[in-house]
Amino acid sequence: MSKPNPMSGFPELLPDQRFVELHVLDRLRRVFELHGFASVETRSVEPLDELLRKGETSKEVYVLRRLQADAEADDAGIGLHFDLTVPFARYVVEYAGKLDFPFRRYQIQKAWRGERPQDGRYREFTQADIDIVGKDTLGFHHDIEVARVMAEALAGLSFLPAMRLQINNRKLIQGFYQGIGATNIDAVMRVIDKIGKVPAEVIATMLVNEAGLDDTQAQQCLELAEIRSTDTSFVKRVRALGVGNDLVEEGLRELAAVIDGCASVTSERFVVEADLSIARGLDYYTGTVFETVMDGFEGLGSICSGGRYDSLASDGRTTYPGVGISLGVSRMLVPLLGKGMVAADRSVPSAVLVALLDEESRGACDEIAQQLRANGIPTEVASAPQKLGKQIRYAERRGIPFVWFPPIEDGSHEATSHQVKDIRTGEQIDADAATWTPPGQDLTPTVTSQMAPHQRAEELS
Amino acid sequence: MSKPNPMSGFPELLPDQRFVELHVLDRLRRVFELHGFASVETRSVEPLDELLRKGETSKEVYVLRRLQADAEADDAGIGLHFDLTVPFARYVVEYAGKLDFPFRRYQIQKAWRGERPQDGRYREFTQADIDIVGKDTLGFHHDIEVARVMAEALAGLSFLPAMRLQINNRKLIQGFYQGIGATNIDAVMRVIDKIGKVPAEVIATMLVNEAGLDDTQAQQCLELAEIRSTDTSFVKRVRALGVGNDLVEEGLRELAAVIDGCASVTSERFVVEADLSIARGLDYYTGTVFETVMDGFEGLGSICSGGRYDSLASDGRTTYPGVGISLGVSRMLVPLLGKGMVAADRSVPSAVLVALLDEESRGACDEIAQQLRANGIPTEVASAPQKLGKQIRYAERRGIPFVWFPPIEDGSHEATSHQVKDIRTGEQIDADAATWTPPGQDLTPTVTSQMAPHQRAEELS
Repeated sequence: MSKPNPMSGFPELLPDQRFVELHVLDRLRRVFELHGFASVETRSVEPLDELLRKGETSKEVYVLRRLQADAEADDAGIGLHFDLTVPFARYVVEYAGKLDFPFRRYQIQKAWRGERPQDGRYREFTQADIDIVGKDTLGFHHDIEVARVMAEALAGLSFLPAMRLQINNRKLIQGFYQGIGATNIDAVMRVIDKIGKVPAEVIATMLVNEAGLDDTQAQQCLELAEIRSTDTSFVKRVRALGVGNDLVEEGLRELAAVIDGCASVTSERFVVEADLSIARGLDYYTGTVFETVMDGFEGLGSICSGGRYDSLASDGRTTYPGVGISLGVSRMLVPLLGKGMVAADRSVPSAVLVALLDEESRGACDEIAQQLRANGIPTEVASAPQKLGKQIRYAERRGIPFVWFPPIEDGSHEATSHQVKDIRTGEQIDADAATWTPPGQDLTPTVTSQMAPHQRAEELS
Repeated sequence: MSKPNPMSGFPELLPDQRFVELHVLDRLRRVFELHGFASVETRSVEPLDELLRKGETSKEVYVLRRLQADAEADDAGIGLHFDLTVPFARYVVEYAGKLDFPFRRYQIQKAWRGERPQDGRYREFTQADIDIVGKDTLGFHHDIEVARVMAEALAGLSFLPAMRLQINNRKLIQGFYQGIGATNIDAVMRVIDKIGKVPAEVIATMLVNEAGLDDTQAQQCLELAEIRSTDTSFVKRVRALGVGNDLVEEGLRELAAVIDGCASVTSERFVVEADLSIARGLDYYTGTVFETVMDGFEGLGSICSGGRYDSLASDGRTTYPGVGISLGVSRMLVPLLGKGMVAADRSVPSAVLVALLDEESRGACDEIAQQLRANGIPTEVASAPQKLGKQIRYAERRGIPFVWFPPIEDGSHEATSHQVKDIRTGEQIDADAATWTPPGQDLTPTVTSQMAPHQRAEELS
């Protein structure tokens, strides 16, 4: 095999980077489960007609075919899923008779899109979604719930940059656009969705040219889109624009409830705010919409998005409304890892390396290691009986904090007991493998933020 | 959406079944990490020429193409990986400069094969692999290590059927086949690999017709293949066949060392034995080989296989020898789950449902839930303020063991304190959300074996 070339758009992590990802996934899972979300995985493939129902994403789908497919191929017309929402909607309809509603699920899985790779956009990427889906009806309070759960999960990961969860409501903006006399609401929404990506002066022109508004209407849309607040003061500012109807009022009430409901999870590192410019373009949301930007990484776009669907899925007779939020784990982490802004302090899980004095004592060393493992301490035994200095360097290179020395019994040197050395401090003490444990923070690799160069990285694990 | 049809070969699990899978994956990961194996994930796709190097699996590969691929498509010629060994070998060569050897990794990921679906054979399936790979050399003791680690992981899953890890050594059987004068060793190995799948009387005929042996030689091969022992007594029986050479002796020594080394992990539920019929057909192993059968599910074939490669990977200048073992998680679990032979007692992670008396008290109920969650207790709040009997049935249907009642303040009934009810026993006690915790075994769903029909696990609904 000649040295393989990296494949653009298919990021891979080194073991110490993978620890950071695992740490994030573990945290997400833990918080999701504490809130009663059950794990679901769907198959990676869906029928093409299912994947292409929305039309717009067709060019991004990876189609599968068996290399030696025969005529009666029963797996023709399948492709890899490009998100976790389409497969989940299908799962809900397919297994509805065996699920209990409202149904809370989390889904942490890969998805694929054949789009041009760029910063934060990959052809293979990991998503972490939570959704709550009801049968016929779904209480509005679940909109608040999914935002709070994701906020709690992300806010606990203190090595990540600060984030801003931006929330809006489709009823509010649709009602407003109707109120000013816009006729092509979808077109307005599509243009408004470009705010932040396209220079502000261009938006007004697009609203006129592409959404059929006059200059005054365009100006009103921009004034609405400028409103943002971390409390419910946005309500007054919207009303001050003088465009009101039942839909606007319903949207204001819902958005205020979500902002109020998230007050307890807001912090300096995780800001929750009403942002009236959030539209979510072509997505079929019908109420609450979410986006999330990461401080210093605004160019990545939203790393965590979602909202309320009045009909996440339907089998014709029954409608399943849903609300959910989807974290782009790869989009959030891969740029941070690539720039070395977050890192783990080990490339192995091992907290202890048991030094091997000679091959004959491997059995005794294995027993020491098993004693430590029985107490929950990840341990490996040296692969070869090299000089002790070399074994210590082996541990150092991997970030293993402790080296265990079995008793040495040769003429020149005699130790009567087992000893364990913290190779970071050099401290070496007598120890008993049946009872010794390292400090709790040394049991697992620690993830540190390298973002403030003058600050010593905070310890977080 | 009309009701979707299941897709043959792409198994999906219901939430309670997924708990069983997660439980197994958590156990595997925990044991792998305790032994110092680091997590690695590789991208799901590899260049086709890499996937097809072995030739034999070509018809099973799923090829990818973008639905609207253009001429300059830079992702032409890629396919989904069909195992985790080929991508890991590529990963080792690609990142060799950034890895420390010997390198221990575990990899729990999906793989895809376009083969005809049948019991235990899926088009999408989850594998859990451990491998240790060296640079230029790799100590033999690692052969023992991977067997012990996988045995420790599987033996701890007491709800699984008993298993039998069958170990052989390629040097031993190759040396033996050479010793009896066979010239086409690969052909002999390919036929021997069919033992158990093809009637015994057919094997002898195949050895003559397909591997060019005479009747005496074929008989000798069958005599060797009949030898099995859970201790090292196989050594004497092989020697009694009177075919000896250096290769046979080396193989005997290695196999005896692996069997001895696994003595401490052998139990009635997890038997480790030398089985001289194990050949691993076309796989390119060069020493130790592993297979594993599950009692009562012999028809699935081996659920956990692996062995030693003198050259897992090579970049021309450096060779990377490896030894590993791969667990077919889907092959092992999906049939058990499908037959209802293992099950979890909940469909949600929640241990507590906080009853909701009216919509106005949702805030107070959310606070109770957050207090419980802060103590590590998965908790959900009732979705709607239904009659209490309905809320208890909601919990029952999902297997949630406890319902929390906030104080009721109406004329007819008055409770002065919070109460929590074990809905399995009916026991209801006063409780403080800041301090109450359920028994440890109720914190997470319990996986039970349904294999003995009289031993029905606690029912939920």
